[in-house]
Formats: sequence, structure tokens, C-alpha cells
Amino acid sequence: MTLARAFDPRGIAIIGASADPTRIGGHPLRALRNAGYKGGVYPVNPKYPEIAGWTCYPTAKAIDGPCDLAIIAVPAAAAPAAVRDAGEAGISVAIILTAGFREAGAPGRKLEAELLAAARETGIRLIGPNCQGMLVMQSRVWAVFGSLAEETELRPGTVSGAFQSGGFGFGIVNLSEQQGAGFRICVSTGNETDVTMPELIGAMLDDPGTDMAFGLLEGTPDARRFLEVGRRSLETGKPVLIWKSAVTEQGAKAAASHTANMTGSTDLWRAALKQAGLIEVDDVEPITDIAKLVAQGRLPKGPRVGVLSISGGSSIVFADRATQGGLVFPGFAKSTHDALSRIIPSFGSVENPADVTAGVFNNMDILTQAISIVLDDPGIDQVVLMLASIPGAGALLAAKAIAAAAARTDKPVTLVWSGRRSKSEPAYAVLEEARVPIVPTPPRMAAAMAKLTRFSLDRERLLPRLRADADASLPSPLGGGGGGNPHASGRSAIPPTPNPSPQGGGEFRGTLTELESKQLLAHYGIPVTREVLVPPGGDPLDLAGHLKPPFAVKIVSADIAHKSDIGGVRLGIATHAELAAAILDVTGRSRKAMPSARIEGVVVAEMARGIETLIGVVNDASFGPAIALGMGGVTAEVMKDVTYRIAPFGIETAREMIAELKSAPLFHGYRGSPPADVEALAGCLVKVARLAWDLRDSLAELDVNPLFVGATGHGVVAADALAILKPVGPEPTA
Amino acid sequence: MTLARAFDPRGIAIIGASADPTRIGGHPLRALRNAGYKGGVYPVNPKYPEIAGWTCYPTAKAIDGPCDLAIIAVPAAAAPAAVRDAGEAGISVAIILTAGFREAGAPGRKLEAELLAAARETGIRLIGPNCQGMLVMQSRVWAVFGSLAEETELRPGTVSGAFQSGGFGFGIVNLSEQQGAGFRICVSTGNETDVTMPELIGAMLDDPGTDMAFGLLEGTPDARRFLEVGRRSLETGKPVLIWKSAVTEQGAKAAASHTANMTGSTDLWRAALKQAGLIEVDDVEPITDIAKLVAQGRLPKGPRVGVLSISGGSSIVFADRATQGGLVFPGFAKSTHDALSRIIPSFGSVENPADVTAGVFNNMDILTQAISIVLDDPGIDQVVLMLASIPGAGALLAAKAIAAAAARTDKPVTLVWSGRRSKSEPAYAVLEEARVPIVPTPPRMAAAMAKLTRFSLDRERLLPRLRADADASLPSPLGGGGGGNPHASGRSAIPPTPNPSPQGGGEFRGTLTELESKQLLAHYGIPVTREVLVPPGGDPLDLAGHLKPPFAVKIVSADIAHKSDIGGVRLGIATHAELAAAILDVTGRSRKAMPSARIEGVVVAEMARGIETLIGVVNDASFGPAIALGMGGVTAEVMKDVTYRIAPFGIETAREMIAELKSAPLFHGYRGSPPADVEALAGCLVKVARLAWDLRDSLAELDVNPLFVGATGHGVVAADALAILKPVGPEPTA
Repeated sequence: MTLARAFDPRGIAIIGASADPTRIGGHPLRALRNAGYKGGVYPVNPKYPEIAGWTCYPTAKAIDGPCDLAIIAVPAAAAPAAVRDAGEAGISVAIILTAGFREAGAPGRKLEAELLAAARETGIRLIGPNCQGMLVMQSRVWAVFGSLAEETELRPGTVSGAFQSGGFGFGIVNLSEQQGAGFRICVSTGNETDVTMPELIGAMLDDPGTDMAFGLLEGTPDARRFLEVGRRSLETGKPVLIWKSAVTEQGAKAAASHTANMTGSTDLWRAALKQAGLIEVDDVEPITDIAKLVAQGRLPKGPRVGVLSISGGSSIVFADRATQGGLVFPGFAKSTHDALSRIIPSFGSVENPADVTAGVFNNMDILTQAISIVLDDPGIDQVVLMLASIPGAGALLAAKAIAAAAARTDKPVTLVWSGRRSKSEPAYAVLEEARVPIVPTPPRMAAAMAKLTRFSLDRERLLPRLRADADASLPSPLGGGGGGNPHASGRSAIPPTPNPSPQGGGEFRGTLTELESKQLLAHYGIPVTREVLVPPGGDPLDLAGHLKPPFAVKIVSADIAHKSDIGGVRLGIATHAELAAAILDVTGRSRKAMPSARIEGVVVAEMARGIETLIGVVNDASFGPAIALGMGGVTAEVMKDVTYRIAPFGIETAREMIAELKSAPLFHGYRGSPPADVEALAGCLVKVARLAWDLRDSLAELDVNPLFVGATGHGVVAADALAILKPVGPEPTA
Repeated sequence: MTLARAFDPRGIAIIGASADPTRIGGHPLRALRNAGYKGGVYPVNPKYPEIAGWTCYPTAKAIDGPCDLAIIAVPAAAAPAAVRDAGEAGISVAIILTAGFREAGAPGRKLEAELLAAARETGIRLIGPNCQGMLVMQSRVWAVFGSLAEETELRPGTVSGAFQSGGFGFGIVNLSEQQGAGFRICVSTGNETDVTMPELIGAMLDDPGTDMAFGLLEGTPDARRFLEVGRRSLETGKPVLIWKSAVTEQGAKAAASHTANMTGSTDLWRAALKQAGLIEVDDVEPITDIAKLVAQGRLPKGPRVGVLSISGGSSIVFADRATQGGLVFPGFAKSTHDALSRIIPSFGSVENPADVTAGVFNNMDILTQAISIVLDDPGIDQVVLMLASIPGAGALLAAKAIAAAAARTDKPVTLVWSGRRSKSEPAYAVLEEARVPIVPTPPRMAAAMAKLTRFSLDRERLLPRLRADADASLPSPLGGGGGGNPHASGRSAIPPTPNPSPQGGGEFRGTLTELESKQLLAHYGIPVTREVLVPPGGDPLDLAGHLKPPFAVKIVSADIAHKSDIGGVRLGIATHAELAAAILDVTGRSRKAMPSARIEGVVVAEMARGIETLIGVVNDASFGPAIALGMGGVTAEVMKDVTYRIAPFGIETAREMIAELKSAPLFHGYRGSPPADVEALAGCLVKVARLAWDLRDSLAELDVNPLFVGATGHGVVAADALAILKPVGPEPTA
């Protein structure tokens, strides 16, 4: 791994090094010295023979020792040459602190392209430009500028993080360390011209000293690669926390003025993180809290929590938040119950949550025993203790009891406690030595335990799916090192069945007709309503005689996208005899509403029955093809009862989408109606996802609406569909 | 105010005082001494002449100095006599630490009744029993037992709090103080036999040194009084934060094993808190953060926030959370823009959120000016600065600049900053002196500012409503001091129009028929469908000849509550001619499904048109009558699209209920349908709320379902209704 070399470099070149410690080119030199970096430090600046006691080199190529990392702090215009110099010197990775590229308009955009070209040609990888640099606490790499350059005493930990906002990201590092969770590798990613955030997080997961990774981002065109990050996270058992910011309109507006990053659809981001087993966070405390749990080195085997508390109120608020997060509180086994009864006073409680009473502070053995008894219960996967703010001698006794019990098991043992540090230093020391995670409030602990438990369960649940989905999307869009839009690599996929090329008078035809759209669905094995096209002047009795009423009559025109809005649809026509009048009516209204539309006729279709749903395809700029499932009618639109996944995916993911709908109870035989064919719906979702992935180069959008879900065994049927094609033209420039 | 005397007592009697400092009767003595309480301390225990240097009295009546507060720590069986003794001694308030009452079964319940009787007869007010006591930091009243008795060095603040869980509540006090927000009066309320949480919070609001109150509770039969607490909070401008725990099934289960408190309906609690202008919280950090903002003594005049930051990433996450909470980020005025442009470097941003750049740390005047320029913008109500984790000299410069700017305005000025205290002590000192609130992360600050802004706006919005609603519910259920169920005081209200008394063979008739239920609605001016009762054998053509089709035919029987489930309803009968067959069908199915039901005939009703909604009345054990509004059909049930308010209420509250429905867009002319008569729906809600309040002694439930909302000007019409009466019997014992 090239990036790994940057995390523990044998030497660091500072290209554009300055003797003035207040300049950007001066910060890293001072920081590396203060941090005690042990490798070679090679200032590069033709103006000086030495800086602050270090030999200064005219070029990187002139450096005479092993060097794996370059920090580039020259002006933007000189940066491409500096990259080339570093690349030719055999340096693996360059961090470009300089700003003035993409974010500074067209000339900067050109310079940024030159940076990338210089890197590609010489094989060096780039972090930045327009970034605040990188910290690696363990190897004392303080390759940063700004106030972090002054804070070389930060305690190292085991979390590695990548931040699109360096200022805020390093603020998180600082605050998290104050709260007891240290970081290890921290990178401000800047413009992500070459190395993107998902690639960087992947490299962090491969770092042996990292046990959790964190990404703070506004958005990225490389978003699909987070599916691979998730797979790697689940494989390694190292959780990845993602703070996706700019999730509101105002946030996105602030982001637009801050960086050039596309912020993307919040719905798709949420879905993708869930699909990939990544943990979404939206404040600093959850990062700190989960980091502390992870640092214990014990992933919970399941969601069953045993609670021991000296405060009933703590147990209640813990239970509230924990159950919202999916944790459960089984009753204790009879043997546990009996054993606890023998040692806990009668005014306590031996149910789960157990109240061990404050009396335990008089007898450490009782507390150790109580914890061990609960830990030994085979029905309990993890144990949490709640001690409120108990200080002093009581806290120390409890700490020793907890440490002793934790040492006897490999189940997670955690502690909710907010004892004042100044009055409880010995207790903190015992607990930190024993690696017992301490979180100050029950809701925070519950939320952190729930998220880590879900991660642990996701390893079983999601990993096979992510592997299968990745195989299904070969040629892999996730391989390779370079930037660019990875899901554009499928350009060789088969074209859609109907010819999407320009037709008519050379004009680009942007949408398929309903019939063509349904042919596309049918090609992928998705049932569509039985129907015929009745061209203008055609005889409906002749053409539609074999169909069974009731019928729907719908106008057919590539120029009319929203048929019902202009009166181009009539439903519930009860007999063949009424067809002629209905066709006249629909045609007349459509002509009146859109006189210029080219009308190919009407479709006469058998009306489908069942629960009305819709499936949509969006070909997202960040994620590529994604699938939406919603309840039909007004429910999806007004109630926003829609769920998303990134395509392609398999049947389990499809089933999960269905179960996620708030309207899901309607599928299960609501108020006497028969249960719906959810398996057929799930199968249909998988097929649409396949279609969306195959046609990702030509399909912009697809709406299957309505899709009727019949009773069990009766399948689904698409009653209408509309495919919108991508404009045919040169590839958009990156 | 009697309770006020307990907050600053001239003397404190400790009844059941113990010379053994490890016993409950020994804790308060030691704590009062350590805390430096300056009033009289009067141990009461006939066994000793003195304890630890204090004269010990045989009874409270024997105390020879002024004494306002008694701490009772005698065994449960002796507690009623101790209360009587204290009451007869003229002591105002007794805190009963002793447990073993209601929570200990029937004998305890009897003892608890004796406690209350002794208090009522002697005029003393009771806090507890089964509580951990009370702290008043300023007057050094450390009337507690447990670990808090050891923590007499807690710094006082301006938040007062009442806790049903003393252990967890005092843990919150401790943690909050560690995070920089001190408490003032803290009470563990225990069983709330006499003084309930809402009464206590009301007394805290009347305390001049309290600027915010906090309640931690699982539930209370006195819940309706929170409407009065809200009114008082809005009147005084002192926010009240409520942490309602036991909001999940598991939480309620834990609460049931912890206390005897009824946890109540989470939906009603949420609605009531919103209705009363109370702020819901569910973790410790929001309490601390809001407390810090409140301590500045500046309520924001509006939601318009100006942001100044040195980190774009901070602004983005702040904007995300702030807009979710209802804050807005208007563009700056042109003059603001121009003035900022003159001082902020060009690579910064003079839009809102403004990026002042890290360069400001070189020039304090620029930062002061920038803040003042934004504060002077008449379109900005409050200003937040974001400085990430900047430490040391930069932090001090910024602190001075912020303090200077804040001193020039009465708009709130807040700071997001997580500078390490050890490297930034002078900066913290400057900011604390200037009362600039500091919150460590942007999302936490955004959430706190949003909640306080909403409180400030609620003073205008809700206060007139709460006053009017209280007037409308006279004779006031909120006055008086005693406990018990306050909304039972309306027993003199008029009886419902149909006679709810037992009829038939002396058997209690629990439900009204549809016709009777509709008569009740009509009595309150609520339009109901035109309809007639066709008794068995009656001629529908004769009886229903004046009605217009289409018709609904529905079975009428007091024994059948859910007509449609048994085939007792047929809809859409198109002509008079089809009525006879439909009546036969409906009657036949009903007889078959419920052979024993007494059938009075069928109702033939004109079918109503419009948007289908439902209105429900629940007569809640904690809140009394409350109203639910939901979308009809499956939406309310499956999508849970229902909103609640406590009755009675006026038209603004009703309008707000309608606007809160997720389906609300359907009322406003969705997809070409005409706008619905929401004013008529709002009026109908007010009438049902009035009905529910008037009949609170006899009505258990009322379902108006469906209620059709016609197009604007066409009003609403109740198509079905079902009233369920309360059993007539002796009052339930408390």
C-alpha cells in the first residue's frame, strides 16, 4: 500500500520550506521538531542552504536519504512542478497544503489538472491540494499548518480520521482527545484531486494500529466506493463512522460557498451508509463514545444487554435510548436470578435491569460477584454498569470490582459514570488500565452500544451481500487507485433494448414511450400489464378484443411525460363497448392540452389489481444507479414513504427495503385483505436494480409507477413506466 | 409561598437525627456542617441531649428557635407522628427521606395516607417520602443523604431542578456542574404524596435566583398542571426543561419496577409539553448547553442567526442542525456586507455564514469590528462565533474581541469553542466574566440556540392561548395546593345529552349508539350526516325518501362497536331502489356475526364527500381529556399520522394540529383537487375539545371517524361516531 508509506515515512521533504515559522512553509518544520519526529527531515528550497539546523535541498531529487512523504507548500502555480520533482525523486505521497486550485475558478482548475497529470506520470499519490495536512500521532508526523502545529502533546489513540474540513476535523480530534478518545492518523483531504476520502479510509483500515476510522465529509463524486469501504470495515471488524454534513438545504448552501464538493442526496447517503454497514454520526460525542467502546477490543456478540445499576432512574433512560437503538433486555436465567438473590439486599432488584443498591460500596466482592454472575448468563451478550457520579473511595472500590469482573470474560463490560476526575483519579486509573470504557450519561452509552452492536451484527448480515453485490457489478467500479468517476467504468454494458439513439429529424429523443419503457422492463423479466397499442384510426374491438375488462386507456406520445395531468389517462372502463368513446376522449384532451405533441395512438391495457407501489431509478452523480421503492398514490409523495438502495443488490437487500416502508403493514394482510406477494416485489426490485446497473451509461431515470403487488402467488405487474435517457454526447469533463 | 420558605430556611430540624454519620439520619447533619449552612440546625431525637455539638431536642415542638424546614429520617411507621410533630411546631415544609410507603405495598400505602392526613391537619407541606432530599446551593441547605452529602463544594448556578429519580437527578447536577452549568435548588421528589413535581417547578420559577428550571420524571397523575407550569414559565421568561423518561415500552417496564409512577402516553406527553411551551430534553448535554445560554440573560428576539467562523466545516454542521431546529440564516444587509468587505481578507467570505479567516487572530480589533458589524445588522437577532479548538494567545485575543463586542449589544452572542482549558485559562476567564456562553460543538450549540429561540417565540405565541385555555377550563383544575387528581374537580359539569346512566335490565350501558353519539356531536354544533333510523320492518322508501343518494347503510346496535369488521356497513348504494336489499344484507351479516346483539335497526345516511379524517377523544388518567386528529383510512393507523392536544383549546391550537399532520399538503389543493375547508375542521376540533372537557366525568372515549372535510366553504361532516362512557361507580381511590 502506497498510502501506508505516508503513515510511517522514513523521511519527509518539505517543498517550499520557509525559515519563517509564521509562514505555511515554516509550520511543519517547527511542528515536526516539537513533535519529535524521528525520521529524516528534508527542507527543499533553492533559496537556502539550511533551515533551522536542517540541510536544505534545492530540489527533492537532490535529497540524499530515504524519503516517503513530501509536504508541498509552494505557491499554486509552482505546485505541479513540485509534484513532478517529488515524484521523480521516488517519494510515494505528496500532501499539498497550497490553495488556489479548483476552488479558485478556471485557472485554478487548469492547475489542478496539471497537478494530477504530474502525479500520474511520476507515480506519486497526492493528498489535497487546499488541505491542512496530516498528523500521525504514533510516528510523530506533524505535517500540518495552523493551530494543530502547536498542539504536539495530543495523546495518541486508535482512531484514524479523514476530514474534508480540516479546521473542524482537527477540532474534533482535539475535543475527542479531551474526552478520552485519542486519534492516530488524521488527514485533511482538501480537494481530493487524486486520493479521495473513501480510498484514504480504506488505507486507514489496513493500518494495524487503527481500530476505528472516521470520515467527515460534505460529499464526493467517489461516493460509490464507500460500499467497498463498508465491506473492508466489516471484514476487518473495524467500525467506520461517517459524518455526512450538508444534509439540509442551508447546510448545502454553506458547503457550496466553502468547497467545490457536491453534497448529493441525503436520502441516498443515508441508504448507502446503511447498506455498507457504515455508522452515521452527527456530533462529536458519539465518535468519542463509540471509540471508547471499540478500544476495549470486544465486539458484542448480540444485542442482549444486562444492566446493573445503583440508580433506577439511570436504568430507565438507558432502556429508553437502548431499545430505540435495537438493544434488548432479556430476563435473567433462573440460575442468575437465584445467584443474585443470594447477594443483593432485598430492597434491591434482581431483575434486568438489576438494582444492586448503594450498599455494594461497602463490599467490593459483592459487586464483583454480581457483575460476574450476570456476565456468566448465556442469555446476556454485554453488561453495562451505572454508577451515576459516585466519587472517591466508593468509586475506587467499584472500579476494582469492575476491573476484576471484566478480566474474567471476553464479553463487553462498560461503565456509565461521571465521577469528578479530581476526586476519583485512582478509580479512573484502575478502569483505564483495565480498558473498561467510561461514558458519562446513560443515553450516550445506550446510543454508542446500540451502534456498535449493530456493526457487530452487520458483519454477519451485510458482508455476504456486499461481496455478492460487488461481484454483480463487475467489471469492478471499485478497483484501481485513481480518481475520477468510478461508476463510469461500465460504459461497455449492453445498450437498452429499445434503441436510445437520436431518431426523427436528427433530434435527441430523451424519453421512451410507455410501451417502450415496458418492453425494457419485460426484457428484464418484470411483468407488465397486458395491453395493445391502438394507433389513430385503429379499431379497438379488433385490436383489444382478447383483453379482459376493466381497461385503462392512456395516450402514447414521446412528447408527453405526465399523461394524467393533461387528461391523457382514463381508468376503469368496464366494457369493450365503451372503449371507442374513451379513446376519443383521451386523444381529444391530449391534443387540446399539447397541440404540438406527436401522438402515436393510445394504449388499451387490462387494469391491474393489488397494492399500489412505485419503483424508481435515479442515476446519481455521486453513487451511480440507485433504486427507490415507495408506496403508490399520495403516500410516497406526501408522506415521503420511500426507501432507497444503491444498485445492484440481491434479494435480502430488496426484502429489507420493503420491510423499511412505514406502510409495510399493508403488505401483511391488513384489515382482512390477503397478504401481498412481497417476494415477487423483492424479486422485481432486484431486476430493476440489475437493469439500472446494466444501463447506467444510457439511462438517466426510470419510473415504474404504479407497480401493483397482487396477493401472495399472484406476483407484481407494472401498469405504467417511463424511462428517461441520458443525453448522448461527449463524456462530461471531471 | 410556603415552599419558598424551604428554599431559604431560618432553621432546619432533623427529626430522627443520628450521631452515626454513616446512617441516613447522620448524613444531613454532616452535610449541613460541611456545606456551611448558616441557619439554626436542630437535631430531634429523644435519645440524645446533643449530637456533634448541636443541642438535640426530644420533639420538633421543643425547638426554641425559628425553624422552617424539617428533614424526617425516622422509620416509616414513625413518620406520620413526626410529620404531625413538625406541623404542630409551625414548620412549613418537611422532607421525608424514609422509604417504605406506597412502593412497599398495602401497609405502606396506608402509612402514606396517614402522612398526608397529618400534613393536611397541621398545614405542613411534604416533599417525598422515599426521596433523597434537597440541595439549595446558595443558602447551603444540604438536606440530603448519599454521596451528594459528600459533595458540598459544587459551584452554585442558576438552574433549579426536581427529580423523580434522585440518584440520577443528582448525577445530572454533578455532571452539569463539571461542564460549566451550576444548579441552585435541587429536589428529589420521591413519591410526591403531597407536593408534586409541577407544583415544585412552579415554586422554583418564583424563586428570584432561578433563571431556568428542569424536571426529570417518569410520569405523574398531576400531569395536567404542567400547562400551568408552562404558562408561568412563559410569563417569567424562565425556560423549563422536561426530561420525560420511560417513553419506550422497556423504559416503562424499568420504571414500573423502580417506582409506582404511572408513565402515561408518550404521544400525549410530547403534545402537552409543546402546547405548554416546555422544552423537551433527553440527555444531559442539552440541559447544560441551554443553561449556559440562559445564564447570559438575553433571550433571542427572533430566529435569524448571524454566523462568524474560522472554519467552513463548522458552519456547515451548525447550519444543518440549526435549520432542523427552525433557525434561519438571512443574507446580511448591504451595509453589513460592505462593512465586512472592508475588513475581511478576500479569501474569506462576507456572506452569512461569514468566514473571517484565521487571520483575525493577528488583529483583535478586526474581530471585534466584524462581530459588531453583524450584531448591528437589524436583520440579525443573534450571533454565534465558531473558533474550533484554537488555544492559547489566539484564544485570548478572540475572547477579548468577543467580550468587547458582546458588551455593546443586548442581542445574544454565543461561542462554539473547545479550546483546551489548560492552555486557555485566561481566555475562559475573560469569556466567563463577560457571560459569553461557550458550547463545545456546533451541533450542540445549534440545538440549544434553536430550543431557546423557540421558547422566546412561544412567549408571544402560546401565552395568550394558555391563558384562554385555562379560563375555558374553569372551575380551575390548576389552582390550590393539594395533591390528588386535579382534573377530577369538574364533576359538576353538565351531563351528556343522551342519558349515560344504566338502562335495560339494570346493566351498565357502556357505549352510545351511532345515532346517540351523533346527537351529542350535533348538540355541540358539529355537523353530522343527514340520516334516518330504519327500524326492523320499517319501509326505507318511506323513511329515507327525502335523503339524496348515494347512501351508506349501517347496523345500529349498542352491542356492536366495530360495525365494518362484521359486515355491518355498506357504502355507495346508488339509488333508493337498492336500499331494501342492502338493509337485508347488512342486518343478516350482523345477526350472523353477533347472534346475541340487540339490533335497533339500520341507519340510512347520505354519503359525505371530502377528505377523510378522524377526531378522537381520550380521557387520559394523567392529563384528563385530550384530542387526537388523524388522517382517515389507513393513514392514521399505519402511518401513525396523528397529532394530539390537551383539551380544551382554541382555534390557533386547532389550526396548528392540522398543520402538523404529515398529510397536511392534501388539504391545500393537492394535484388539482380544491383546497379543503381547514377552518371548519379547526372549528370542529375546538368544539370536540369543549365537549370532551365538559363531559370529562362521564365520557371515556369518543371516536369521530370518518369526519369528512369538504372543499373550502363546504364545512365538515361527521359520518360516524362512537362514544364510550365511563363506568358509573364510586370514585377510584387515589
